[in-house]
Amino acid sequence: MSKSYCLAEIADLIGCEVDSRWQDRRITGLAPLETANMEQVSFISHSKYKKYLATTKAAAVITPAETARCVNADTAVLIYPDPYLAYAKLTHLFAYRTPSIAGIHPSAVIDKSAKIAHSASIGAQVVVEEGVVIGENVIVGPGCVIGAHSTIGDDSYCYARVTLYHHTQVGKRAILHSGVVLGADGFGFAPEKGQWVKIEQLGCVLIGDDVEIGANTTVDRGALGDTIIHNGVKLDNQIQIGHNVKIGQGTAIAGCTAVAGSTTIGRHCRIAGLVGIAGHLEITDGVVILGMSGVSKSILEPGIYASGIPLESRESWARNVIQFKHLNELAKRVNQLEKREQSDE
Amino acid sequence: MSKSYCLAEIADLIGCEVDSRWQDRRITGLAPLETANMEQVSFISHSKYKKYLATTKAAAVITPAETARCVNADTAVLIYPDPYLAYAKLTHLFAYRTPSIAGIHPSAVIDKSAKIAHSASIGAQVVVEEGVVIGENVIVGPGCVIGAHSTIGDDSYCYARVTLYHHTQVGKRAILHSGVVLGADGFGFAPEKGQWVKIEQLGCVLIGDDVEIGANTTVDRGALGDTIIHNGVKLDNQIQIGHNVKIGQGTAIAGCTAVAGSTTIGRHCRIAGLVGIAGHLEITDGVVILGMSGVSKSILEPGIYASGIPLESRESWARNVIQFKHLNELAKRVNQLEKREQSDE
Amino acid sequence: MSKSYCLAEIADLIGCEVDSRWQDRRITGLAPLETANMEQVSFISHSKYKKYLATTKAAAVITPAETARCVNADTAVLIYPDPYLAYAKLTHLFAYRTPSIAGIHPSAVIDKSAKIAHSASIGAQVVVEEGVVIGENVIVGPGCVIGAHSTIGDDSYCYARVTLYHHTQVGKRAILHSGVVLGADGFGFAPEKGQWVKIEQLGCVLIGDDVEIGANTTVDRGALGDTIIHNGVKLDNQIQIGHNVKIGQGTAIAGCTAVAGSTTIGRHCRIAGLVGIAGHLEITDGVVILGMSGVSKSILEPGIYASGIPLESRESWARNVIQFKHLNELAKRVNQLEKREQSDE
Repeated sequence: MSKSYCLAEIADLIGCEVDSRWQDRRITGLAPLETANMEQVSFISHSKYKKYLATTKAAAVITPAETARCVNADTAVLIYPDPYLAYAKLTHLFAYRTPSIAGIHPSAVIDKSAKIAHSASIGAQVVVEEGVVIGENVIVGPGCVIGAHSTIGDDSYCYARVTLYHHTQVGKRAILHSGVVLGADGFGFAPEKGQWVKIEQLGCVLIGDDVEIGANTTVDRGALGDTIIHNGVKLDNQIQIGHNVKIGQGTAIAGCTAVAGSTTIGRHCRIAGLVGIAGHLEITDGVVILGMSGVSKSILEPGIYASGIPLESRESWARNVIQFKHLNELAKRVNQLEKREQSDE
Repeated sequence: MSKSYCLAEIADLIGCEVDSRWQDRRITGLAPLETANMEQVSFISHSKYKKYLATTKAAAVITPAETARCVNADTAVLIYPDPYLAYAKLTHLFAYRTPSIAGIHPSAVIDKSAKIAHSASIGAQVVVEEGVVIGENVIVGPGCVIGAHSTIGDDSYCYARVTLYHHTQVGKRAILHSGVVLGADGFGFAPEKGQWVKIEQLGCVLIGDDVEIGANTTVDRGALGDTIIHNGVKLDNQIQIGHNVKIGQGTAIAGCTAVAGSTTIGRHCRIAGLVGIAGHLEITDGVVILGMSGVSKSILEPGIYASGIPLESRESWARNVIQFKHLNELAKRVNQLEKREQSDE
Repeated sequence: MSKSYCLAEIADLIGCEVDSRWQDRRITGLAPLETANMEQVSFISHSKYKKYLATTKAAAVITPAETARCVNADTAVLIYPDPYLAYAKLTHLFAYRTPSIAGIHPSAVIDKSAKIAHSASIGAQVVVEEGVVIGENVIVGPGCVIGAHSTIGDDSYCYARVTLYHHTQVGKRAILHSGVVLGADGFGFAPEKGQWVKIEQLGCVLIGDDVEIGANTTVDRGALGDTIIHNGVKLDNQIQIGHNVKIGQGTAIAGCTAVAGSTTIGRHCRIAGLVGIAGHLEITDGVVILGMSGVSKSILEPGIYASGIPLESRESWARNVIQFKHLNELAKRVNQLEKREQSDE
């Protein structure tokens, strides 16, 4: 974590100009306005932080034109309309990557039928089963298991201990974090005389390009047909995606959300954490769902949806929650009051 | 995935008859009515799909007698009262299994005291600790860790990267998916002067026969006494089962549900996803719990239970949810109205 | 699991006295009052179990002075004010530890730059990357991956298949259960023309001393700055901790709870299972949150908080829940009734 760049390079990367007196400043990292030091670049992500511009010790601040004049005289100014986006781009300069060398670690167990690009790096203790195809520049971290006939597209990165079941397809530039399991059986059983008969899951998991999947997230294979995660989808940690779910391009889902089988989620949705989505639903493009919501019906209109309950002190909650069980009765009593009032008139 | 059967074999397996003119049809798979082709068998799982029977291109359709006459003339008819069950049974014909050979992969690390049946297959990078017993035809997938003195019954299948802590017992024909952890410590601490004193978890995890456990599900070992999952229980992905929980025969639990310590769940219950069940409860046989419910008291009567909240647009939700905090007050005000009304009369 | 102690040793460990006629009793384990046998010690954890004291077959019972006279004549009495704490301490006598020997298993892959204490035990199939430092008496179980430049403090225990990403710091006497992932990327993206630009996560994960982390729990690395779990924190299974979260000393969190990014949780909080805590909040010291609560605002006062909904039969629930969507309207109608009533007077 000891890379450094001159400020001119930084400005160049995000496509903005920097005054000549500042362009040789040596930059070693990024930091928030309050804590940034003379070798760090900062940015203003929200106007409520404007007050810090006068006092920040940052080497440079990325700011929209409106707040540029608030920056103190010792700090360089990089004018950019979306400082948060600029920050996102700059993080790529400073990211640490565990060194990896092309080739197969001697401890890895690779089936002889697997096709692995010469530029790919297969880590220690990895298992690659028969018929697997691994593309250019792919990194397969330590302890991963790549199941039979799976494919991983160019430039994808599997962190340690990722598991792909057989016939899983992962696109290009995917990032799969540790503990991810793609292609385990969907949850399907038919009852027969008090026993469950297993429904073998005959479909696969297809993951598009530029997909990122967080630690310990699971995506089940399809029952008939496939589970499909389209290009650019971002899944956080510990998400559960049921069999035959489809998730449209660019949708992002936060941690611990569960999507039951055969539900289709549209493009460019944003779904918060701990949301539960029932099976066999359709959620259209551009839907936003707030945290801990329960979705039991299809959502056919874009918009923002919620169903959470507010936190209260236990005493207050206990008094209110008990009324919840009488809500229907309460509504009836109000009806009665209204009726009797009317008949009195 | 290129097995094929003639239709007579298919009919035989589910125990129904097929007209002689159709019995030689070559079947390579299963598919829904709308997408099935001339080499696939389909089935009608719900009467709402009856309309597709006239137009399906399937080689054959499994249907109850009532809808048999709706099937088009080019499609063979297999009459069976429960087509979904027939479908479940047929999936077993077409399931892919990664080839495994009996014996121990050279990269596996096996304690010399372990007893492993000759017909068992121990995969690459596996670790088997001291005193382990593994039965006939068991498959232990790549990267599994089987802790000391654990046992796995005949015909069980551990997918890649399953972990059994020490002294875990798994029955026959169990299926454990990747990332499953059986026997980690239950969450037990006693407070002492602002510190937590760990309660060592001295019990074990006992898993019955014909149990399936989904990816990244965790079952904790008992504190005193054992955590017990009885025969035929089916657990989906990312379920958390606390210490000393007992789950009765044939119960099925969907993804991301959490069961806290010392709760007993009866037989043949069906519990949906993202349900939270508090500790030290008793749930009787035959209970059904809908998704995202919170269970904080014992359930002593069979039946269907729920506690979820419906999704709304954010605007509508915000207006309603704010009233939730005034629900007790609202009930009181209705009481007052009723009282004053009565005293007016 | 065949250790034994004489009762005098047991009494000594918890610091209480035992009558001389009982002190030679051989003790092989601990058990609840109802099931304990003549070689087991039991304890009374709650006065509701007082009835069992007369009939227990236990070799000895730990009891506060008040209930000591209820114990039958064949059972030894150990008087201790907090029997549950005594029980917690005694569990340490009987805990099983898989035998481990100092040194590095031949199948482990260790970077030559790693510094591993001679007393540490590195298990089979482990991967230790460059620059790692592992302290005295540390046990790294089978299949763990310790990422580059991570450190693990003295006397810590990693069960099988724990993953530390690069630059993760774990303190002394930590216990990390199987499937734990520390240091995966936080969930951060900036939108640009309908695409997500990844925000590389430049911070780390810092875990204090005496921390226990349950199976399949994930703690993300910080975006800028670090995610910090302070000394003595206890995390149960399948918890998700977002980037830049801070959790104060001695706080305990139960299974499946999710804490979104940049939230700070104080010291000595107790948070139950399946709780969702939104991002960028502050929760002060000493807060208790009941199960399945949703926390969307900061909590600045210690106390007990809740937001769960009670379970009902489906019929009753359906009637009540439908009214939830009309709650604001209902409140308005009650307002109207009150107003009209007033204007009538």
